[in-house]
Amino acid sequence: MSSEQRAGAVEKQTGRLESFSDGVFAVAITLLVFNLQVPHLTGASTVEALRTALLKQWPSYLTFMTSFATILIMWASHHGIFKLVYKADTPFLFANGLLLLLVTVVPFPTSLVAQYLTTPAAKLACAVYAGVFVVINVAYNLLWWAAVRQRRLLLPAVTPRQVKRLTRHILLGLPVYGLATLLAFWNPYVSLGLCSCLWIFWAFTFYEGSRVGAV
Amino acid sequence: MSSEQRAGAVEKQTGRLESFSDGVFAVAITLLVFNLQVPHLTGASTVEALRTALLKQWPSYLTFMTSFATILIMWASHHGIFKLVYKADTPFLFANGLLLLLVTVVPFPTSLVAQYLTTPAAKLACAVYAGVFVVINVAYNLLWWAAVRQRRLLLPAVTPRQVKRLTRHILLGLPVYGLATLLAFWNPYVSLGLCSCLWIFWAFTFYEGSRVGAV
Amino acid sequence: MSSEQRAGAVEKQTGRLESFSDGVFAVAITLLVFNLQVPHLTGASTVEALRTALLKQWPSYLTFMTSFATILIMWASHHGIFKLVYKADTPFLFANGLLLLLVTVVPFPTSLVAQYLTTPAAKLACAVYAGVFVVINVAYNLLWWAAVRQRRLLLPAVTPRQVKRLTRHILLGLPVYGLATLLAFWNPYVSLGLCSCLWIFWAFTFYEGSRVGAV
Amino acid sequence: MSSEQRAGAVEKQTGRLESFSDGVFAVAITLLVFNLQVPHLTGASTVEALRTALLKQWPSYLTFMTSFATILIMWASHHGIFKLVYKADTPFLFANGLLLLLVTVVPFPTSLVAQYLTTPAAKLACAVYAGVFVVINVAYNLLWWAAVRQRRLLLPAVTPRQVKRLTRHILLGLPVYGLATLLAFWNPYVSLGLCSCLWIFWAFTFYEGSRVGAV
Repeated sequence: MSSEQRAGAVEKQTGRLESFSDGVFAVAITLLVFNLQVPHLTGASTVEALRTALLKQWPSYLTFMTSFATILIMWASHHGIFKLVYKADTPFLFANGLLLLLVTVVPFPTSLVAQYLTTPAAKLACAVYAGVFVVINVAYNLLWWAAVRQRRLLLPAVTPRQVKRLTRHILLGLPVYGLATLLAFWNPYVSLGLCSCLWIFWAFTFYEGSRVGAV
Repeated sequence: MSSEQRAGAVEKQTGRLESFSDGVFAVAITLLVFNLQVPHLTGASTVEALRTALLKQWPSYLTFMTSFATILIMWASHHGIFKLVYKADTPFLFANGLLLLLVTVVPFPTSLVAQYLTTPAAKLACAVYAGVFVVINVAYNLLWWAAVRQRRLLLPAVTPRQVKRLTRHILLGLPVYGLATLLAFWNPYVSLGLCSCLWIFWAFTFYEGSRVGAV
Repeated sequence: MSSEQRAGAVEKQTGRLESFSDGVFAVAITLLVFNLQVPHLTGASTVEALRTALLKQWPSYLTFMTSFATILIMWASHHGIFKLVYKADTPFLFANGLLLLLVTVVPFPTSLVAQYLTTPAAKLACAVYAGVFVVINVAYNLLWWAAVRQRRLLLPAVTPRQVKRLTRHILLGLPVYGLATLLAFWNPYVSLGLCSCLWIFWAFTFYEGSRVGAV
Repeated sequence: MSSEQRAGAVEKQTGRLESFSDGVFAVAITLLVFNLQVPHLTGASTVEALRTALLKQWPSYLTFMTSFATILIMWASHHGIFKLVYKADTPFLFANGLLLLLVTVVPFPTSLVAQYLTTPAAKLACAVYAGVFVVINVAYNLLWWAAVRQRRLLLPAVTPRQVKRLTRHILLGLPVYGLATLLAFWNPYVSLGLCSCLWIFWAFTFYEGSRVGAV
């Protein structure tokens, strides 16, 4: 990863940790496809019957896209954190491990919402969905906190402004996902919509950020 | 990836993006094997019964091979684009994310065709199959457009001729897959055949291209 | 992996072996999520019914977390061994192959415990679970032994103290997992608890170790 | 992959091809675990019932281990070929693509044998199993042939003796797997045993080879 060695004297030591994390992200994001199941037609296999069955699965398509986009943004944030870090200590490793555990969990609440979105149980399914992202956000905050405390793991070139910006960027998820968890018991669609808003917002702030430094 | 650093002064910064993308491609292409299911024999487990059951699954084998070859060519094209690019900006990242989302989707229409190819619903199944590739092709065109606009992300050594060649190469999929989508409603086999023609054609033009530059 | 090249004159030759191993670890750890199944409600899909069904699956959540943490610690240990090694010979390759085989097996006893923890068969399920980790520990000891015998594969900078420390660290699992296997027939929960203690202990000794050298 | 750059003046250009291939190998080898299914007990969930059910699955364990070992040896051979190659042309890419397709197929015949080994259909299942390895071996021979013809892709340091040795090494699989395919119709166990002999033999000749050069 020669592109990461911009840091003059300090050498990056997180190569294998990054590539293992990338592997977990890549597998978890790809396993979301199991959410898309080929419908089993009970009657005749006509074009109309298949079309009806495929359209009826719209919650699967919706949650697949939302979860995919969210994991992708999470991967980009992970990448963003690791770009500022040149070595790992144990708290950082633990926080990263917790984060990876939670990333691999994402296909589970995704299936849960896909299966129950059109039933009365949607409220609980969407609360679990948003709740998992609350916990993931906590793990991100832990990871970032482990990286910045006493600046021990950060590359020398990282400015206080960059640290402050990323801190705000990551903390934002906590209240929003928390709100989405609560709102799920009122209206599951609003909760899902709020989760989607968040990754769209992150994508755009990410865009703003990328104008300043290199992506 | 020291082999990618041929570009003199400009340093490649897309290492981790490439390896994450490779991971997603590798997992998605391998998950296609779930298309191949061990048949459950209802009667006696004789050699004849198993042979009949295995042969009856020919649509699974056919779609497995077509989808595998197509994802492989898509990976090669992805590789071809990234070889000319030295950094990523946000539109490029988004286009790449959309592309990866669609690549992970491929096992779904593959299963759909495998299951319904010998039924009247084959028309819709094959239209969905070709339709997914239309959308994938749009994502490729977006990715390539994000790379070449104002030449901001391209390596200095890339010639206008290379850009033009790859633009044509990628655009070609749009009308052909679009035609395959329409033809599916007339004859699903012709549609599938056209999809196969396309990856064979790309494989050969790829061969032509590889004679000029290094692969 | 520039972070691994600290070893002055001796060049690391294990790059592709490490990245292949990382891939296997990453896939195996992510496949654990199949342990978490969306419950199928037989009656009405109400919030209460889904909550009851989700809570009833607690053995799945417990074993998912235990297995995830254990594979993560195993990956860290694997990383720890490879950091001291600069080349591979055939016994080392075989031991690594055996280890990878066993790592990919972990999702199987994990599912076994998840499914039978609340039944009388829990004793056998937990004994199989702990028993698999006994065999994995044997594979780790073989790998480490293959690395250190006659110091042929070790980097010159590795001190005898580091070797001794890691030898003790790895050997510890054998009696503890062996005990957990036996205890399973008396009380499966105690057996599971002992397996969990071990990864927590390893995590903390790992922390101690990381204070001395770089992680 | 700094360990691969031993070749003086000629620079390795196959980095991303290798890492993609590694990803496919890693996923395919890990997916074999789906061969190991948690038994569903029909009666009471006692220790005895679970033990009987687990022991009855011995064909799954046997085929899991055989397929795992075979894919591992295949990965090592793939690694062995790529170590001698510094660039890829289109025939080489195609042969590699065919090989990867076949590697991802391996979990399918593995499940087939696991399910039918104790039934009369075992003859066909084992013939398919060995037959897949015949085709895989053909792909290896194609890959190696694409690498050595006119020595265009080989590193300058590769000796004719090395080429000859690897040619023999790879060709050997053809008659043995062919024989195993035929023998399956006489005795499926002998066929499976022959397949196992082959990977054990390769493992040992690999050992011999590794004494000469670096592994």
